[in-house]
Amino acid sequence: MGVDASHFSGSRALITGGLGFIGSNLAHTLLKLGAKVTLIDSLIPEYGGNSFNVDGFADQLNINISDVRDVHSMQHLVSSADYLFNLAGQTSHMDSMEDPFTDLDINCTAQLSILETCRTHNPKIRIVFASTRQIYGKPDYLPVDEEHLVRPVDVNGINKAAGEWYHILYNNVYDIHSCALRLTNTYGPRMRVKDARQTFVGLWIRQILEQQPIQVWGGEQLRDFNYVDDVIDALLRVAADNNSGGQIYNLGGDQIVTLRELAETLVTIEGGGSYEVKEFPEERKKIDIGDYYSDWKKINKDTGWQPRISLAKGLEQTLSYYKNNLSQYI
Amino acid sequence: MGVDASHFSGSRALITGGLGFIGSNLAHTLLKLGAKVTLIDSLIPEYGGNSFNVDGFADQLNINISDVRDVHSMQHLVSSADYLFNLAGQTSHMDSMEDPFTDLDINCTAQLSILETCRTHNPKIRIVFASTRQIYGKPDYLPVDEEHLVRPVDVNGINKAAGEWYHILYNNVYDIHSCALRLTNTYGPRMRVKDARQTFVGLWIRQILEQQPIQVWGGEQLRDFNYVDDVIDALLRVAADNNSGGQIYNLGGDQIVTLRELAETLVTIEGGGSYEVKEFPEERKKIDIGDYYSDWKKINKDTGWQPRISLAKGLEQTLSYYKNNLSQYI
Repeated sequence: MGVDASHFSGSRALITGGLGFIGSNLAHTLLKLGAKVTLIDSLIPEYGGNSFNVDGFADQLNINISDVRDVHSMQHLVSSADYLFNLAGQTSHMDSMEDPFTDLDINCTAQLSILETCRTHNPKIRIVFASTRQIYGKPDYLPVDEEHLVRPVDVNGINKAAGEWYHILYNNVYDIHSCALRLTNTYGPRMRVKDARQTFVGLWIRQILEQQPIQVWGGEQLRDFNYVDDVIDALLRVAADNNSGGQIYNLGGDQIVTLRELAETLVTIEGGGSYEVKEFPEERKKIDIGDYYSDWKKINKDTGWQPRISLAKGLEQTLSYYKNNLSQYI
Repeated sequence: MGVDASHFSGSRALITGGLGFIGSNLAHTLLKLGAKVTLIDSLIPEYGGNSFNVDGFADQLNINISDVRDVHSMQHLVSSADYLFNLAGQTSHMDSMEDPFTDLDINCTAQLSILETCRTHNPKIRIVFASTRQIYGKPDYLPVDEEHLVRPVDVNGINKAAGEWYHILYNNVYDIHSCALRLTNTYGPRMRVKDARQTFVGLWIRQILEQQPIQVWGGEQLRDFNYVDDVIDALLRVAADNNSGGQIYNLGGDQIVTLRELAETLVTIEGGGSYEVKEFPEERKKIDIGDYYSDWKKINKDTGWQPRISLAKGLEQTLSYYKNNLSQYI
């Protein structure tokens, strides 16, 4: 990690979605940096929260099982934090289309409520919001930088965009230090592998370990990927940066591969297994975004961040984790 | 009007926010074109609805007093409409900052609910959504075209942007013909003049007629304006256009003036009165967008629309209307 540990040593960090994939990995790192860490998670079964994610270090954490939509518990927890890593969210495309109102509740109403709580109870807090490259929709050009139009292709993208803007607005109008990272495809230990709700890479890992063919939809689409440790590094860098308030940063990978190549890489690393390429169903074609990869020069310039873990190494570590722990995730 | 009346003759048009400024003017025109018109309005005192707006033609309308947040009344009304002019909204910057959740309810939740109702009960409906140039925030360049980044500077702008995108999404994913107009400053008879909640021009009209000095904040900011009849013409053109589904169009004026010049023009037309230029308070400076005017070439190219009523003529007609009717609006 490139972050000066002194920024976080003794500090009080609050992580929403803290039992989830990124949240639990972040908690692990923050503990090592000497922070006092509180996690909030609703453990809604369809989301990414999993108590096993903090196995081995749960006793060093303050774990608060509650929903970010619960105004009163949030008020209490926000009041005593120096940093808020705001990672809770509904991330499934399909769920957002089938139940748009729950997506709106979690990704908009709850976010606004968290920010109002910060404004009224703890305006000195520093917030990092986990946004997503999905809000760009189908790219006009590649790589996609932060000046690209936001043009979401699903309800989830629209609501995430609004959630992100609330954070930037509260920074600009109320001086609550707040910034947003637009994450690309993130993978690694502790991700959801039960299904593709969080990332299709999770489902692929499960398929290969269960000796099922990996299901590749389309196959020729280009994508970039970040191993979770690189994302944690970025979260900590922008949280520690006095100049990050109001900024929006893309993350991105330095290897651009097709989905078919990713499946091949997984099969190679595993030393076995197979994949099947399938045609997109008509319904999905309407929201297919084609190729996507990010321009992440802005965060590199401002904070020095760059992805450090290669796709091959990251996938190897991920496979290794799930070989030992798959039963905890399915 | 440049729209072929046959598009609307005998058709059933539903207007949300129908007792408001633009809605009531649109209703008047649609009646003349032979449409059967239903208005929905909640008559919330802080918004633009005013029963006097349909004085003289109320008996030709079906007026339904209800809130677009009321799912059951909306289901009933949406089911039997050919066109939905979706104009209901919370428009006040200040109200959105003081009560962001009500703004979210009306500008996001209710819009999503209306679209879900169309999807499940009447997917053949054609929708025009009234969006706003406020979602662009502080322009990077002038004139602002539809390719400009959306970067709202208040809660209202964020929620209006989400509401707009829901409409485009439901067009693209569910084939519900839906498009959006990003309105610039609209003025004319039937606008709210009680305060600046809808448009500052309304408050200025009231001030000059009540022989108070017009209060000009800043003064050198450039703006463009549309007389309401030009906006009605645009709403009808895009509603009638088979190719408008999924499109977002700017409206804009062809005279670009500073706020000071606008105040001077009003004083000249009125033949009396005065204005005072005031410094922006610190709080407002944070969300000051500087100069703004629109590029409206896209709608001109696609539908032939252009503004036809000059600022001088539009202001004259507006002043004349409020001289006769001010007491109904304060």
